[in-house]
Amino acid sequence: MPSQLITNIISFPQISRLTRSNGIRFRRLSTGAGASVTGNSDGSRSTSESTARLSFYADTVIGEEVLDQKYEGLEYDTPEVPALKKEMATLAHQGNWRIILLRFTLLFAIGCTTGATATVIDFLTTTICSIKFVIIQYLFGEHYASWTLLIPAFVWVLINCLFILVAVVMTVFVAPVAAGSGIPQIKCYLNGLNVPFILRARTMMAKAVGVILTVCGGLLVGKEGPMIHIGSVVAAGFSQGRITCFGLSLRSFRCFRNDAEKRDFVSAGAAAGVAAAFGAPVGGLLFTLEEGASFIFQRLTWNTLFASMISMFTLALFRSIIDGQPFKFTPGGLVSFGMFENVTSYNAYELMAFVLMGIIGGLIGALFVAFNRVLTKYRQSYLKTRSAKIIDAVLIGFFTTVLSFAILVLRSDCRSLFQKDTNEFRQVVCPNGEYNRVGALLFTTPARALNALFHDPPRSFNDDTLFIFAPYTFFIACITYGLSVPCGLFIPSLLLGAAWGRVTGELLYGFSPQNFPDPSKFALIGAAAQLGGIVRMIASLTVVLVEATGNVILGLPVLITLIPAKYIGDYFTEGIYDMHINLSGMALVPWEANTRCVQLRALDVMTSPVVVLDTVMPVRELYQLVFDNPHHAFPVVEGHRDPDHFNYGRLVGMISAQHIALMIKKKVYNPLDGQDTPRLTANDFDDAYPRFYKLKNVLLNVSDDEFERSLDFRPYMNHAPYSVSVDMSMTRVFALFRRLGLRHLPVVDNFNQVRGMITRKDLCRFRFAPAGKVAERLFSRIY
Amino acid sequence: MPSQLITNIISFPQISRLTRSNGIRFRRLSTGAGASVTGNSDGSRSTSESTARLSFYADTVIGEEVLDQKYEGLEYDTPEVPALKKEMATLAHQGNWRIILLRFTLLFAIGCTTGATATVIDFLTTTICSIKFVIIQYLFGEHYASWTLLIPAFVWVLINCLFILVAVVMTVFVAPVAAGSGIPQIKCYLNGLNVPFILRARTMMAKAVGVILTVCGGLLVGKEGPMIHIGSVVAAGFSQGRITCFGLSLRSFRCFRNDAEKRDFVSAGAAAGVAAAFGAPVGGLLFTLEEGASFIFQRLTWNTLFASMISMFTLALFRSIIDGQPFKFTPGGLVSFGMFENVTSYNAYELMAFVLMGIIGGLIGALFVAFNRVLTKYRQSYLKTRSAKIIDAVLIGFFTTVLSFAILVLRSDCRSLFQKDTNEFRQVVCPNGEYNRVGALLFTTPARALNALFHDPPRSFNDDTLFIFAPYTFFIACITYGLSVPCGLFIPSLLLGAAWGRVTGELLYGFSPQNFPDPSKFALIGAAAQLGGIVRMIASLTVVLVEATGNVILGLPVLITLIPAKYIGDYFTEGIYDMHINLSGMALVPWEANTRCVQLRALDVMTSPVVVLDTVMPVRELYQLVFDNPHHAFPVVEGHRDPDHFNYGRLVGMISAQHIALMIKKKVYNPLDGQDTPRLTANDFDDAYPRFYKLKNVLLNVSDDEFERSLDFRPYMNHAPYSVSVDMSMTRVFALFRRLGLRHLPVVDNFNQVRGMITRKDLCRFRFAPAGKVAERLFSRIY
Repeated sequence: MPSQLITNIISFPQISRLTRSNGIRFRRLSTGAGASVTGNSDGSRSTSESTARLSFYADTVIGEEVLDQKYEGLEYDTPEVPALKKEMATLAHQGNWRIILLRFTLLFAIGCTTGATATVIDFLTTTICSIKFVIIQYLFGEHYASWTLLIPAFVWVLINCLFILVAVVMTVFVAPVAAGSGIPQIKCYLNGLNVPFILRARTMMAKAVGVILTVCGGLLVGKEGPMIHIGSVVAAGFSQGRITCFGLSLRSFRCFRNDAEKRDFVSAGAAAGVAAAFGAPVGGLLFTLEEGASFIFQRLTWNTLFASMISMFTLALFRSIIDGQPFKFTPGGLVSFGMFENVTSYNAYELMAFVLMGIIGGLIGALFVAFNRVLTKYRQSYLKTRSAKIIDAVLIGFFTTVLSFAILVLRSDCRSLFQKDTNEFRQVVCPNGEYNRVGALLFTTPARALNALFHDPPRSFNDDTLFIFAPYTFFIACITYGLSVPCGLFIPSLLLGAAWGRVTGELLYGFSPQNFPDPSKFALIGAAAQLGGIVRMIASLTVVLVEATGNVILGLPVLITLIPAKYIGDYFTEGIYDMHINLSGMALVPWEANTRCVQLRALDVMTSPVVVLDTVMPVRELYQLVFDNPHHAFPVVEGHRDPDHFNYGRLVGMISAQHIALMIKKKVYNPLDGQDTPRLTANDFDDAYPRFYKLKNVLLNVSDDEFERSLDFRPYMNHAPYSVSVDMSMTRVFALFRRLGLRHLPVVDNFNQVRGMITRKDLCRFRFAPAGKVAERLFSRIY
Repeated sequence: MPSQLITNIISFPQISRLTRSNGIRFRRLSTGAGASVTGNSDGSRSTSESTARLSFYADTVIGEEVLDQKYEGLEYDTPEVPALKKEMATLAHQGNWRIILLRFTLLFAIGCTTGATATVIDFLTTTICSIKFVIIQYLFGEHYASWTLLIPAFVWVLINCLFILVAVVMTVFVAPVAAGSGIPQIKCYLNGLNVPFILRARTMMAKAVGVILTVCGGLLVGKEGPMIHIGSVVAAGFSQGRITCFGLSLRSFRCFRNDAEKRDFVSAGAAAGVAAAFGAPVGGLLFTLEEGASFIFQRLTWNTLFASMISMFTLALFRSIIDGQPFKFTPGGLVSFGMFENVTSYNAYELMAFVLMGIIGGLIGALFVAFNRVLTKYRQSYLKTRSAKIIDAVLIGFFTTVLSFAILVLRSDCRSLFQKDTNEFRQVVCPNGEYNRVGALLFTTPARALNALFHDPPRSFNDDTLFIFAPYTFFIACITYGLSVPCGLFIPSLLLGAAWGRVTGELLYGFSPQNFPDPSKFALIGAAAQLGGIVRMIASLTVVLVEATGNVILGLPVLITLIPAKYIGDYFTEGIYDMHINLSGMALVPWEANTRCVQLRALDVMTSPVVVLDTVMPVRELYQLVFDNPHHAFPVVEGHRDPDHFNYGRLVGMISAQHIALMIKKKVYNPLDGQDTPRLTANDFDDAYPRFYKLKNVLLNVSDDEFERSLDFRPYMNHAPYSVSVDMSMTRVFALFRRLGLRHLPVVDNFNQVRGMITRKDLCRFRFAPAGKVAERLFSRIY
């Protein structure tokens, strides 16, 4: 090709001149072509140069060592296996209707099961907690007003610690991933990251039992976040149509056995969980759209809404039966905020107050996240053993109960039973015929305390009660989230917000009862502001709160509270879920590339050198390559290559390690070796999903005979992978990667020759911390 | 490269053997490499072969001639212009906060303006209609019970026809694209198709005035669909921050001046329109997610929800002021369905009835679409002139009024005023002290008739009134939609559904008053079923109806009605908006590729031959190329090419015709010609957006001197375009194209040599009609 060579030589200096004068840092590899054809050393990616570039972004680049290698990516892009194309086409052809019906049946089952699980959790929590409080109340009554009051206190602490002990032992030994709310993990899963064990039945059981125990154990936790996790597990289980331990596997579910379909079902399950938790089916849909789903399309919205609607109504149906009025439905889920029917108006100055409360919520939320971050890092560093985790949880439980008891006794606020200030008449340590007003907050479950703050009449709390309760909630919630027990964060956040919101409302009421007649409205707005400031969602929270209160009119106030809460919070720290995700080393690909990415090119981000395979390759050679480089996919190349100059040959396909393992396991060697060879069928792939053979293990079991044979990858490789040019800006590489849900992206030059590879981890190394600048800098000094 | 050649020769027969034995049709171009290196003719794409392939899919392929060339694609992918990279980076750097604030300010303005416009439309419609009915009622009273009754009838017809005449004349002469509901066009715009004039202020004015006139002119139309269009125009106008006719253009808005940002604002505007129309902000959000947005991300959901919330509350605020109770908000928008507060329960057999009603809604909806399709094709073929369109609209208006009058007189149902059957006491042609029950349906606006059907007590209508009213509505709505006036379809569909739903409810009530005590519930479900059967939405309609009725409990019944309505309807015909889009020849890219696409490859779909440009090119040569091939973008190539064998050279970039035009207009010629040359800046691109210079026009004005110069495309071309391999399956090509919002996609072989191009139109030619099989076949026989 003499003409080509000449073109390159002519164009080369000119491009460099132009780009240089535009102030863009010049890299000779950018034309690619020149290097490999002329054979000079310009094409190499000099390490020093690359290091310089990285150090240029040093303040923003997160090193690879932070990303935990145990989390593997999921493959949302359907690979094209030439040998299976016909089967795929047949599968697609045979009756769309069958698949649609099967899908809706499954979604129905998912919704029903999630709703039913929520009912059981609700029923058990309510019953056990009632019994517990009745017993302790009885003992309080027996030992009223003497030093023996410490006996019921001791019993209370003992019961709580026992519950928590069982919960934490179960979590730590049975399913460690059941700890926490599960939302960070589900968010990562939907983002395309395989969190091990997160969708197993065992995890779900531990979560369900654990959350009942922790709520009854008096920890300041909610059961709403765990419900979302439970819904996801239900969905993942049902959609696969197989029970591994019994060897049962239904062929009709084959079309659902790939990462993309499973993800869509998990989205629906998560939404069903939200719907059951808050009685908010549309909120559930928006939750998966806003927080979870990595790619959204029309059908997914229907499926998700259907599952969450069914879930909410299953719960409502069961509850109506328990209430003795079957089919008489009331709004609400696991937690009910009660009806805010009287809120039908608010004034311009109230709206301004709401915006201010949003800002306060964002500030307190940022403080909460910052404290929790310190604690979480401490726990990660020092509380690594199982026993440490158990002691941690039990101690916090002990501390929570003792503190509650102390406040109940020391700030006791006894009132006559005729004074109808609340629906929660808790005698606690008061004389007969009176009740302790503080009991409505501390001698009850967090969800009921929330209702008291929302609905009790103005001036019904002593000011100092609320002034103590708000910091108590902040402190306890902060140390509790991150324990090794199933624990949701929604209720504690709402409670904290409701407490200071109520204080605000009472102050304004005192200031001008005509203009601010309703402190409960401020309690609700405070709750919204606080939750928004901690978890940093907007659309889904608005809809969840509107649906949970059953009042459409509240939409605007909640929204204009949540928007400042999120943006102010983001200025200081990231959201609490993102914080936990980052600290766990999970590589979450955000929605949009950071604005500074336009200055980077694929070249700057890609990993190089690359391990490439030939189209036909001896097993022995493969063995050597793979043992040194346990990657998950390999580019298959042909033609001239020159690894010294970072040219790895012309890209003709990609093959995943899992498929190679399957080929070797099924002894699908190259027929040209002269021996008969089997062929892989779609069923082989189906049987292998999702617990593929590990390539390393398979290679270790290969016989000496087979070692001499070779593999022909062409029929089983993805022969038309997406690839990008070395020159493409990170912004566009990011868009491709994110929107198509890729796992590996080969980077090629203008001759389609492999230069590098980009994986999810490469993208996440360039997480420029768009949020949390201040806190990041602060903490980078502390550690 | 001897090694490469050998690899090819060895691998070639083997691949063919393998793929062939898998039943996949073998194409020698698939290896690509072999052809161009060895120089044989295997690499050509034989025309006969391609024709054979197309005829294989003949039943499913829509010919190119159906796609109207006047609709151009939008570019949602941000092209990379090397010369502007630094400016782009600076723009992104300077203060994210400024952009966030500006964005929310704009969204606030959009919401306010949309809400205010809705208020004005609502107020004017109500006032004018009231005055009209008062006048006619007065005349009816004067001429009661004699042949002179024809005088008020004549006046009624005259007023209506006059209103319609003004509306249609204005539409036809001022803004023809203002006709119809505007939803199909907005859907296309959001999908990435530039519908000319659709977002101009003139169109919006015509739409707003027109919809008032048509509603007051007695046509069976709604003002809700047009409201969505109006919201979109408001958003598009505000977001660009420039008034072209005054030459005003604010530089701070520069970051919003590209197709992708504008699309996101239009999404928010459309949602604001829905919110104002139905009082459903969340419904608005879901409407854009389900129907409109071509790519959804987190930030878009917040922005959209914010705009629609503001829009709804602006309307509510103005209405509360008009009602004399400022800041006292009530749910509802332009149309209010009234409160369904008493609906708190439904039984299992009622749920089954709802599913059945959904099926009926789907069937009637399919029939509606089929009839309307015949009519629309007729109108497209024969009513092409302006006068024909005017006569059409006025005639239909005449006919509607005369028919209403006839029913009012002939089926007159006079009742005593003491009988409180309704809130709509319309005397019409009854004696004094009595009112005509039929008047509540026909002597009022469609929106109020809907409320009567929803809320009037059981048995309050004569059965035969409803039996006549339902087919009347079907017939009139069907002939009305498609007229050259602004007209929405939501209200007519709801009215039709409410009519037959009410009939169903009354029948069931007669059958068993204990089990089915509430026909109005069935009216609502019928309305939902019918609307779903015609427009084929699920999630957004559910939420819109829940929000408009203010009753969360209705979620499940509405959803399980809408799901069968959609799927049954889709079995027979496509949705009415899609039908109108297809008949208009707009190329809408659906959400997912058809399942049969796995059998096709990029090779089968791409357009070839391709017009390619050199990196440096004389203007004269460009002139010749461009005049024969007025494409919108051209691949820029280097190196060896062999067009006889469909090899167009190695892809090094893409450049759009608009940018070439800009270069020539600004005289940015190749500096190597020896003369000084200006450089393009970001401002030049900004000034040119969105009404770019036409390349043809620019070339015609080039002086003879300039003709001798050359253009260097490299600094201004997109130097890292997305490209796909010839072998990639259509399913994956489709995903890339759809999710990244591309406009052009070059197809390359394994050597990165251009083989063909895929554009939006190529994708749409392979629209396999997943829905509407039966009807398509039926109609293909009729025409």
